[in-house]
Amino acid sequence: MAKHYKRILLTGAAGRLGTELRKGLALLADHVRLADRTEIEDIQAHEEALTFDLSDEAAVFEAVRDVDAIVHFGGAPLETAWKTVLSSNIEGSYNIYEAARRHGVGRVVYASSVHAIGYHPLQAHIDTEAPVRPDSLYGVSKCFVESLSRLYWDKFGIESVCVRIFSSFPEPADRRMLWSYLSFDDCVRLVSASLTAPHVGHTISFGLSDNALKPVDNARAGHLGYRPQDSSEPFRQAIEARTDPADPGAAATRFLGGWFCELGHPDDEAGK
Amino acid sequence: MAKHYKRILLTGAAGRLGTELRKGLALLADHVRLADRTEIEDIQAHEEALTFDLSDEAAVFEAVRDVDAIVHFGGAPLETAWKTVLSSNIEGSYNIYEAARRHGVGRVVYASSVHAIGYHPLQAHIDTEAPVRPDSLYGVSKCFVESLSRLYWDKFGIESVCVRIFSSFPEPADRRMLWSYLSFDDCVRLVSASLTAPHVGHTISFGLSDNALKPVDNARAGHLGYRPQDSSEPFRQAIEARTDPADPGAAATRFLGGWFCELGHPDDEAGK
Amino acid sequence: MAKHYKRILLTGAAGRLGTELRKGLALLADHVRLADRTEIEDIQAHEEALTFDLSDEAAVFEAVRDVDAIVHFGGAPLETAWKTVLSSNIEGSYNIYEAARRHGVGRVVYASSVHAIGYHPLQAHIDTEAPVRPDSLYGVSKCFVESLSRLYWDKFGIESVCVRIFSSFPEPADRRMLWSYLSFDDCVRLVSASLTAPHVGHTISFGLSDNALKPVDNARAGHLGYRPQDSSEPFRQAIEARTDPADPGAAATRFLGGWFCELGHPDDEAGK
Amino acid sequence: MAKHYKRILLTGAAGRLGTELRKGLALLADHVRLADRTEIEDIQAHEEALTFDLSDEAAVFEAVRDVDAIVHFGGAPLETAWKTVLSSNIEGSYNIYEAARRHGVGRVVYASSVHAIGYHPLQAHIDTEAPVRPDSLYGVSKCFVESLSRLYWDKFGIESVCVRIFSSFPEPADRRMLWSYLSFDDCVRLVSASLTAPHVGHTISFGLSDNALKPVDNARAGHLGYRPQDSSEPFRQAIEARTDPADPGAAATRFLGGWFCELGHPDDEAGK
Amino acid sequence: MAKHYKRILLTGAAGRLGTELRKGLALLADHVRLADRTEIEDIQAHEEALTFDLSDEAAVFEAVRDVDAIVHFGGAPLETAWKTVLSSNIEGSYNIYEAARRHGVGRVVYASSVHAIGYHPLQAHIDTEAPVRPDSLYGVSKCFVESLSRLYWDKFGIESVCVRIFSSFPEPADRRMLWSYLSFDDCVRLVSASLTAPHVGHTISFGLSDNALKPVDNARAGHLGYRPQDSSEPFRQAIEARTDPADPGAAATRFLGGWFCELGHPDDEAGK
Amino acid sequence: MAKHYKRILLTGAAGRLGTELRKGLALLADHVRLADRTEIEDIQAHEEALTFDLSDEAAVFEAVRDVDAIVHFGGAPLETAWKTVLSSNIEGSYNIYEAARRHGVGRVVYASSVHAIGYHPLQAHIDTEAPVRPDSLYGVSKCFVESLSRLYWDKFGIESVCVRIFSSFPEPADRRMLWSYLSFDDCVRLVSASLTAPHVGHTISFGLSDNALKPVDNARAGHLGYRPQDSSEPFRQAIEARTDPADPGAAATRFLGGWFCELGHPDDEAGK
Repeated sequence: MAKHYKRILLTGAAGRLGTELRKGLALLADHVRLADRTEIEDIQAHEEALTFDLSDEAAVFEAVRDVDAIVHFGGAPLETAWKTVLSSNIEGSYNIYEAARRHGVGRVVYASSVHAIGYHPLQAHIDTEAPVRPDSLYGVSKCFVESLSRLYWDKFGIESVCVRIFSSFPEPADRRMLWSYLSFDDCVRLVSASLTAPHVGHTISFGLSDNALKPVDNARAGHLGYRPQDSSEPFRQAIEARTDPADPGAAATRFLGGWFCELGHPDDEAGK
Repeated sequence: MAKHYKRILLTGAAGRLGTELRKGLALLADHVRLADRTEIEDIQAHEEALTFDLSDEAAVFEAVRDVDAIVHFGGAPLETAWKTVLSSNIEGSYNIYEAARRHGVGRVVYASSVHAIGYHPLQAHIDTEAPVRPDSLYGVSKCFVESLSRLYWDKFGIESVCVRIFSSFPEPADRRMLWSYLSFDDCVRLVSASLTAPHVGHTISFGLSDNALKPVDNARAGHLGYRPQDSSEPFRQAIEARTDPADPGAAATRFLGGWFCELGHPDDEAGK
Repeated sequence: MAKHYKRILLTGAAGRLGTELRKGLALLADHVRLADRTEIEDIQAHEEALTFDLSDEAAVFEAVRDVDAIVHFGGAPLETAWKTVLSSNIEGSYNIYEAARRHGVGRVVYASSVHAIGYHPLQAHIDTEAPVRPDSLYGVSKCFVESLSRLYWDKFGIESVCVRIFSSFPEPADRRMLWSYLSFDDCVRLVSASLTAPHVGHTISFGLSDNALKPVDNARAGHLGYRPQDSSEPFRQAIEARTDPADPGAAATRFLGGWFCELGHPDDEAGK
Repeated sequence: MAKHYKRILLTGAAGRLGTELRKGLALLADHVRLADRTEIEDIQAHEEALTFDLSDEAAVFEAVRDVDAIVHFGGAPLETAWKTVLSSNIEGSYNIYEAARRHGVGRVVYASSVHAIGYHPLQAHIDTEAPVRPDSLYGVSKCFVESLSRLYWDKFGIESVCVRIFSSFPEPADRRMLWSYLSFDDCVRLVSASLTAPHVGHTISFGLSDNALKPVDNARAGHLGYRPQDSSEPFRQAIEARTDPADPGAAATRFLGGWFCELGHPDDEAGK
Repeated sequence: MAKHYKRILLTGAAGRLGTELRKGLALLADHVRLADRTEIEDIQAHEEALTFDLSDEAAVFEAVRDVDAIVHFGGAPLETAWKTVLSSNIEGSYNIYEAARRHGVGRVVYASSVHAIGYHPLQAHIDTEAPVRPDSLYGVSKCFVESLSRLYWDKFGIESVCVRIFSSFPEPADRRMLWSYLSFDDCVRLVSASLTAPHVGHTISFGLSDNALKPVDNARAGHLGYRPQDSSEPFRQAIEARTDPADPGAAATRFLGGWFCELGHPDDEAGK
Repeated sequence: MAKHYKRILLTGAAGRLGTELRKGLALLADHVRLADRTEIEDIQAHEEALTFDLSDEAAVFEAVRDVDAIVHFGGAPLETAWKTVLSSNIEGSYNIYEAARRHGVGRVVYASSVHAIGYHPLQAHIDTEAPVRPDSLYGVSKCFVESLSRLYWDKFGIESVCVRIFSSFPEPADRRMLWSYLSFDDCVRLVSASLTAPHVGHTISFGLSDNALKPVDNARAGHLGYRPQDSSEPFRQAIEARTDPADPGAAATRFLGGWFCELGHPDDEAGK
């Protein structure tokens, strides 16, 4: 059998997760087209690379040509000024979906974020249908793409998986990541499952490894077939040894979004 | 007792609903500041008027000065080109909320729309916590403001009521409006209740009169104290006499969003 | 405007409710075809009558010809021997749905019953999506048609409203009917709403008047637009005067199905 | 027909609500036995009166003799010192239920309170199955009796209705009571319905009039057949004229329990 | 200790699953009575065999004599003509339950099917209380027995476990079975758990192995203690190598029932 | 890093579970203060011991001095006379919480019990938010502390984890414990998780090992990070060999509380 896809476009390919995803996508597509606003090195034989900004509508349109799936991990990865959020995440993602529609792309996997639902308390144990509660302008932009992709499925038939990534790093860096950790390998597993599941329609999935502490319920994404195989437990002892217990009353402890909930407004002096 | 508010800003004051709201707000505030991009006539003694575009950040900032509540009904009222949606509804509403935050405004009533949840079937009988399913770019912009206002409540303490208006017209114009009708008087009642309820935090309310056919469940907004007093029933006989029964299988019949669900993309030739 | 339908078939037309429905259907269709296994008298100008048994597949097929809606109230109306339930209610209703499919009928309104969910306690306050809990073979046959009609909607596109009639009599006859009463007029209102609602797909609705005591939740059928206008309250004083209070511990008091829950098996001597 | 009951015991008969209930119970029982720790005057022909403290186990036992229902409104009616709550509300109510069990009483109507769930926010729109969140030691004692009565139903077959009274006064006294008001007449209606409903098992019902603002959902108590007929609306204008708008951010505004949520501990100096 | 049962009747004993179950039942009962309409060979010492048709009421009655549990796997195993469904599955199963009632059998394990809920989309992640949505006449007959067995529990005290078997084959045969696979060993585990669980009342359980992709939620059957130990994962690579990816938009991909949802009516030419 | 706590108070330290917990707490605190009404031997270097009765308010107050967490496992461990329940469990636990409040203790782990929810049937598969249904006066006292601790969190900011222990014994002793078993090691794991979880607010958790049969849903306590590592399965064969199957119809089989549901009243002769 041929691979699942002929050509996948990966945006944000130069980023922390993008670099990891390149390995996983190699197994799923004959060709992987890498896109980022910074130049990418080490291009492999099955890869091709493009450098442009997501707010450049024409460049996005060209990048999507001849593609049958998009893994959209580009855009600003953190809270930042409104103008940047607007341009990179809102307009940039609109450009991606419009190009997908015009070129007839069947499926998009989108890097949404815990920050779309960051103000839900851990104790609420929300599932993926809980109302959004963003914790930042960045989080609001993730909500925007989740609703935009919902429209593109309901009206234009383009499937999407919105992966709400929690904390994807080489290893858990602090006590919060003991429950919010998503290993790189599990991140690749989740994106791969999203690309190969038989039918996804419009699916929202939390992106977490199999950590001991489980603050959310991902059962509604069970049709993706994602099975995390990593956990933060092997790192627990070291983290607890070098950090103090969390303040149980702090917003960063109580809410899913962690310290994003304690940030001020990015356009204030104090917030910068 | 003094009125509830010293000065309320009403955006979209020259629009169909804005004109109706001017009467209702007169009872709730000493002063009502009217804003629209077209000039407003017939200014009353308690009113003051401003003409500007919502995408004009500085003008919005000035318009919000000395205001203690905002009724935000401005912006594009229908499906339209992406650039217009982006500028009028997304950037414009961001400007309103940012100005509210900087000026310390306590409460905003926002004209959201059934089109934020237009792809839910009537048979689903959703409540106000159902996930969004916009039926248009216009609807996506409504979802954007709903999530933005959620952030401004959770993080900055600005209360909002997002009123999902269904069909607010002088009278029901077709068979769909037999269940989607919101009379002008009920619309004013709902906005007034939203302004005077003791605590609203972040509340989403459907905007409907007391029609016989009830496609949604508004119980979670019961703390607003809104009681519709009108109904489409008096208009039923005339409407049924002059129109054919709906096609039960048409998208416009099955989904809350009605004919918006059958529109193409606004930037296509066919969609224009 | 023309009436909603050209020709409606009414089965069970000679029964207690069938007689009432004849009046209501006259307003909705140019022609009403009456069917029963006993002969019907007083045929009106807009009516036509057929006499046959529902288990007669060929007769049913002929009766459905040229019909655009069916109000299916025929079959055994009470707990009875298995062979009768099988023939009249199971095979008979299958014949109706198959004939509807072959003739392209768009919508069926079916007289289901509280006895499909008779073993739910009043205190459970079920809605129309609760699992079935029949209280009799009669009730099992109602469950059968509810699932059959679900198939005919999902697979063949024939809309159905399954009306779970509680106690439809000229007036409430005992204390249970103070909460289970469905007036004849409300029954006609509910069937009419089921025929005229814009889209019903496959809908289950409880059939109750606006009694003070409300044991179930019918909100999920709100898209029918049925508004009961009668109540058992005017009869309360007389009923309480002539009957003893119910035994709070009796099955007939605790369960929706009332005394059906205390019946034995119809094929036992004791059950007969 | 005879009345529903031969003899009802009413505890707290000298209290604000007890006095009102005497009128209502006269219609439901041949005899009404009044109990309070203060002497009661104006004893009517169908009434008999006893004076004792609920913590007096023997006196309670005697008071329950020959009774077939109990309306238990006695005990401390407000937040107070722990020793008093323990003695009057916890031990006193235990004595009532034990006496009911030993004498074979069939049904108890208990004056529970909004303060058993006082820390739920209005916006949560809880129903009667939400977990308890008491706002005071008084509220904890109400939770105790709710769980005790649940045991006495599940294990000993004694039916109970726990009526969570919100604010029952001659008329609404402040802005909070615009939504928490329970008129005296509606209170009597609710207790009467609780006594005459065919089966109650163990039922929890909110006690509210038909006010415009609806903070909770009482549908699960629909089998009582309680229909409030009063509302706070006629008093709105006068109340709004003489009081300031509520502070939207105050605990007393946001939570069901109102100012009880702002009380300190009753055994502190500050709390006294 | 003796085995759980003295004698278990196994219907459909000559079928694909019946053959597997014979091994498992040997551990649970002293005697296993095998029934099928085709003759069974290889009768073991603890077994006895009967040949009859389930529609033969008298033969069924005799087969149930001296039995204390029934594993009812007989009847038509696929979509087929209505007359066959009626006779084998509806009348046949009625005969089984009636014989169980008359002989005082305590527990029945019934082979229901995914096709009773085949029109639910995978994305709905239904649990066992979701309303039925059969995908075939075969599925309707499964719904019939589920409701019939519910009656026989509620009214006659006969416990039942209705096992909704997905795809039970020697190994997964296509891509759909990657999520619908129930290994033979897990099937036997599930039936054994159903027979030995301390109390089952009326329980519905999905029948699935521990596959990676989880389209439904079986938590409500947790009191059976069924723990699947097999998975389709070991077969994935081979299946994906020899088959094409599914069409994400096909009914057979989107719905639980798979290709049954694409079958026509069995009594049509096209459906045969 | 220092341990999580400086000094933990353990009540009921001489009891079956208290003895086990001493080992676990040694890892979490510099000092462990042991309290019981019987003297404790074998005091370790990091331990200190106090002997007093929980109803002794002054002694409790002293015992809580200089403590930063309390593991409250003291009080009557079984159904017993009301006076004992009142004194040991109700007054005793009030004393603990009041002392915690006055001394500023941050977190309490409380030994609640399955008997707080003992009358829920296994088939209901309740989660931790289900309404309480105690099966004994002992169970009512557990409900009391659960509601009291809720108040102390909502009003006074003291965190609590209420651990509803099922059957914690050296090994499962009968067939019920095949599903209700909580190994000693898992009990210690659960208490340790409750003490070290970053934020618990007011959390209720079921206390069960990873048994095959799962009668309840503990997902809402997932933020504790408790992962059971033991199971009753290794004991199954031996237990089934030496005991008869349960009577499926007995209350002790059907309800979570087991044989507590079959106890009489403890103050009756028969109940003693």
